[in-house]
Amino acid sequence: MIRSRLSGLRSKMAGLGIDYFLIPTADYHNSEYVAPYFRTREFFSGFTGSNGTLVVGMEEAGLWTDGRYFIQAEKELAGTGVDLYRELEEGVPTVDAWLADRLAKADVGTKTVTRQAETADAQAVKEGHAPTLGFDGRCVNVSQMRKFRKEFAGLGVRFVTDVDPAEGIWQDRPARPAAPAFVLKEEFAGESAVSKTARLREKMAEEGAGLYVENRLDSLMWLFNLRGHDVECTPVALSFGVVTMDRRILFLQEEAVTDEVRAYAGETGLELLPYDTIYSFLEDPSLYRTGRSGRDGEANGPDPGRIWFQPGSLSVRLLDAVQKGRDEALRQEKKDAAGEALVCSRQGGPGRDVEKRSPVEDFKAVKNEVELGNIRSCYRDDSAAVCRFLYWLSQHVKKGTVTDLTEMDAAQKMDSLRAQIHDYVDLSFETISAYGSNAAMMHYTAKEGACARLKPEGMLLVDCGGQYLRGTTDVTRTMALGPVTDDMRRHYTLTAVGNLQLLDAVFLYGCSGRNVDILAREPLWQTFVDYKCGTGHGIGYLLSVHEGPQNIRWRFTEGMAEAVLEPGMIVSDEPGVYIEGQYGIRIETILEVTEAARNGDGRFLRFAPLTLVPLDPALIDPAYLTPRTREVLNRYHARVYEEIAPLIPEEERSWLREQTRPL
Amino acid sequence: MIRSRLSGLRSKMAGLGIDYFLIPTADYHNSEYVAPYFRTREFFSGFTGSNGTLVVGMEEAGLWTDGRYFIQAEKELAGTGVDLYRELEEGVPTVDAWLADRLAKADVGTKTVTRQAETADAQAVKEGHAPTLGFDGRCVNVSQMRKFRKEFAGLGVRFVTDVDPAEGIWQDRPARPAAPAFVLKEEFAGESAVSKTARLREKMAEEGAGLYVENRLDSLMWLFNLRGHDVECTPVALSFGVVTMDRRILFLQEEAVTDEVRAYAGETGLELLPYDTIYSFLEDPSLYRTGRSGRDGEANGPDPGRIWFQPGSLSVRLLDAVQKGRDEALRQEKKDAAGEALVCSRQGGPGRDVEKRSPVEDFKAVKNEVELGNIRSCYRDDSAAVCRFLYWLSQHVKKGTVTDLTEMDAAQKMDSLRAQIHDYVDLSFETISAYGSNAAMMHYTAKEGACARLKPEGMLLVDCGGQYLRGTTDVTRTMALGPVTDDMRRHYTLTAVGNLQLLDAVFLYGCSGRNVDILAREPLWQTFVDYKCGTGHGIGYLLSVHEGPQNIRWRFTEGMAEAVLEPGMIVSDEPGVYIEGQYGIRIETILEVTEAARNGDGRFLRFAPLTLVPLDPALIDPAYLTPRTREVLNRYHARVYEEIAPLIPEEERSWLREQTRPL
Repeated sequence: MIRSRLSGLRSKMAGLGIDYFLIPTADYHNSEYVAPYFRTREFFSGFTGSNGTLVVGMEEAGLWTDGRYFIQAEKELAGTGVDLYRELEEGVPTVDAWLADRLAKADVGTKTVTRQAETADAQAVKEGHAPTLGFDGRCVNVSQMRKFRKEFAGLGVRFVTDVDPAEGIWQDRPARPAAPAFVLKEEFAGESAVSKTARLREKMAEEGAGLYVENRLDSLMWLFNLRGHDVECTPVALSFGVVTMDRRILFLQEEAVTDEVRAYAGETGLELLPYDTIYSFLEDPSLYRTGRSGRDGEANGPDPGRIWFQPGSLSVRLLDAVQKGRDEALRQEKKDAAGEALVCSRQGGPGRDVEKRSPVEDFKAVKNEVELGNIRSCYRDDSAAVCRFLYWLSQHVKKGTVTDLTEMDAAQKMDSLRAQIHDYVDLSFETISAYGSNAAMMHYTAKEGACARLKPEGMLLVDCGGQYLRGTTDVTRTMALGPVTDDMRRHYTLTAVGNLQLLDAVFLYGCSGRNVDILAREPLWQTFVDYKCGTGHGIGYLLSVHEGPQNIRWRFTEGMAEAVLEPGMIVSDEPGVYIEGQYGIRIETILEVTEAARNGDGRFLRFAPLTLVPLDPALIDPAYLTPRTREVLNRYHARVYEEIAPLIPEEERSWLREQTRPL
Repeated sequence: MIRSRLSGLRSKMAGLGIDYFLIPTADYHNSEYVAPYFRTREFFSGFTGSNGTLVVGMEEAGLWTDGRYFIQAEKELAGTGVDLYRELEEGVPTVDAWLADRLAKADVGTKTVTRQAETADAQAVKEGHAPTLGFDGRCVNVSQMRKFRKEFAGLGVRFVTDVDPAEGIWQDRPARPAAPAFVLKEEFAGESAVSKTARLREKMAEEGAGLYVENRLDSLMWLFNLRGHDVECTPVALSFGVVTMDRRILFLQEEAVTDEVRAYAGETGLELLPYDTIYSFLEDPSLYRTGRSGRDGEANGPDPGRIWFQPGSLSVRLLDAVQKGRDEALRQEKKDAAGEALVCSRQGGPGRDVEKRSPVEDFKAVKNEVELGNIRSCYRDDSAAVCRFLYWLSQHVKKGTVTDLTEMDAAQKMDSLRAQIHDYVDLSFETISAYGSNAAMMHYTAKEGACARLKPEGMLLVDCGGQYLRGTTDVTRTMALGPVTDDMRRHYTLTAVGNLQLLDAVFLYGCSGRNVDILAREPLWQTFVDYKCGTGHGIGYLLSVHEGPQNIRWRFTEGMAEAVLEPGMIVSDEPGVYIEGQYGIRIETILEVTEAARNGDGRFLRFAPLTLVPLDPALIDPAYLTPRTREVLNRYHARVYEEIAPLIPEEERSWLREQTRPL
């Protein structure tokens, strides 16, 4: 099946003179999770993981993915003719390096198609001889494009960026999602969209940028206090947004614009335009002219032709549209030299535009007091549901009162308990319920008919979360279902020690996640064990379950954001141990960054746990538990009991008391 | 006295039309410690600390220094009319920001001196109106100059960089040091200078840079396997160096060139030129031409006009000389357009030159096997001397058999024990012997006639080190001289826990000091205490006691190097507690980075201690010692006894056994 799809794509490539076609895991919005409509990488490779890049050549194809998915990808790619490239492993080339190698070798002399040079490397491009890379420019961001240009310098590569690879090949492609959007009231958002825009414009004015273009859905939803249902598990509406010093424009699909949304837009001065018109809107030169106030060329405020954008998230196609619009404005000015002066920078290149992290990302990451109050209350309810699930598991699997339960059954039980919470909107991601060796695959998904049965032995890992009007949750617990080995207990305890050391950290203001990561990792590193992923990520408010700019990682790759931990940010704390073919352990607790103390030595911060679910005492080997972490664990468990006991049925409380008894 | 010196400088400034004069703590070599000849900042301010920047205006003067020196600077500046600016404290402007503010306000309208615009900000410069900053361009590096240009953008500032502020004012200025240099044999260096240059040229070729210019003395000494005696405590000879693809040139003072050095230079193809001719040498356009081999313009190898330099260490004057030489070469080429083509980049600006950390710095930081063997043996002997000192202290102060001892007496005893080691060359820095509240000043120096008497109570901090043919040492121990308070024991123990946690760290290859810093700091941070300095620094081999590029710090300021910890690097581990007016604690152990394990999870590294001196059991409060650090401490102490006992007199051994008994 995959082979025939690839052969369809190769015919298309041959027709367009494309040597290699790149298909990232991406929609038009740089989203982490993409709706089925956009899953072309999965369609052409069969690999279902959440991260991967497929490159298709005429004779070969390769898929790149990260350590979480090595095991899964190997299984899913078997027999497809697509080779697996394990990212960051020694000797494995990056996508860019691999492409540079292949494009340099591309047997271009034999081609008959006439090509035009579209790149800066025009000197090396000869008619009929340009090695050509194709991709959908709506799905590739500006940074990636620049990396390609840099990596391929001197090869005279031609880029074809206006091809949707699936068009005409993916017959039963799902419809583009288009659900009604809704307004997030201020009792949940804590700040009006008008106030948020004012803060954004302040930052724009500081940088002299008169134009802000955004395609990331969570940023747009946060900025305009809207939500939608277009992406599974992420309550966003497909949209694009433009903010200038006097306009706020949201490009929404017709189906998203309900009466409520239209009324809200009218009241708050938000212009609504059709989703698909963003490109022509940006190509219109009039956007880049100042109004009458700009006539005398001074004190005009920010330059309307100076765009603030994030190269790491804005799509190539959107920036191309801006450039086209500015070029046209410049042409018009030249023609109309006798007329009024236009005050704008139509030649804005990397040097002129503001290429910085969007202020919206920074604003969004620091939750306001209303959001924090909602989040704390939401995590209590969510934690209570997880506790009820753990109780259910202890009654049905451990005690063997119900047999024949599968991973899926466990996930469904968990999901149904969560769905009972009064302001539940959706899951925040598909629940991971992984038993035994399946848990060694970091992002394993149990599938109907192909999932493990739970036995009263070994461990079950459940990673799950919900979307509520009061926030977004994420939690992982690993539980013993019966007898476990000494190794399992040792690894679980070392993971717990790391989790608790980070939870209990005190640090000076100015630290990023990079400073504190080792607190979670060191107990495992001492035994020469590592987990091949970050320790923590930020979390949105009724938005993406992963959000930046903060995170907790030890190693930073070029271009990766590194943000200071600010009070009001929330981050996950999720060390783990993954032994291929044997078992997987992850303990994930969500933490809030809070003030701790201020004195002559500085401003100290610390974490406060939002997740309130016990760790499994059956998996803790006191021999590996340090006195400090024992104390931190006992304090944490006491708080879990205090806050969760009132929220669960009486018969479950004695179980919770037992689970949280001091060690 | 200071006031009259400043008035002399102000007269000179008035004559030259200079509004503000900047005097950094620097020689012509970006050295950390500067010889007395170069101590103009001290001469004009009276502040004797090792770090500080003085700025003198016509009506005011300011001195900027870091947290180590706040207390000391306050004392020394009293009555001088120089204001203290405490770096990194809230609300305290940086030197650059302060200067920008002052230069913007400079009352330039009233000046009569005609000035020329020398800067890029020509549009703002009007004759007679350019605010002017003066400094000695041999003492300011390119990065600092660029920061000024950026900070002062739009102010039309004129720079006067060819003035030595002390000339004509400092009557009894010490002579410029000029001692004989000597050759460091391969049994100590472990690699020939020719091999080192070959490695450098390989890196130059990779970057296409045909010219390497160096003014840092430790880099030059390392690269050419020479040492000298021109800087106190740092065995270097004043010198400049130039390496091209076919020449190696060292600019040395006449007095440094002994017969041995001349013979060695002859044997190894090292050109020796007079120290002061470096500027005219670089201004000579012939340096930037290729030879005959360059004629056909291809496969020429690196561009002789492309310089590799570190903007953060190369002096403004040296880069100016290079630029002058290249400009002249370009002029000659234009004149001689009909002649042979010159293949060189005379217009090398930031974009064309290679502005990266010098490969010499990276090479030097990773000690080779010969160096490591020497260093380990050297640290054993040095540690034995420190142990003997501690024994002496216990006999003479603690027991009260000798009274009336001062901090100076203790330092002299320590220094004399060190000087007995067979290959002793010098101290690696002036010994810090700080009793009681003096130890709260991080880099306090006891002075004859103004130093504390040691009493049989409280704590003495001794920070010291030596230069040996086998390497450079650095060690700090804090000892109880009698009864101590509970707070002292608590703070000492928390410092010890941090020191031992870092010493025992296991970490993945790829970590920098920034990843591990928190291991040393966290025990103190938990009690809202911090030390206002880095946790660790690299150390040279018979060179500077502080060397990069690696270090152990939690916060990085822009432009600061961050280097991966590599096996063979050595770093200090020196947390501390400093309570102003009360006491100071520092425990400094030098660590070697070593391989620990390699498996599917990665390449793990760990530290091995080089310093083998016991911590003071009298200062350890077991209530604050974690079981893990207790174990690490016992293991460390066992090793100290095992290795040091054979090196000290028999009567001292039982004392050492007692000090290292398991806790």
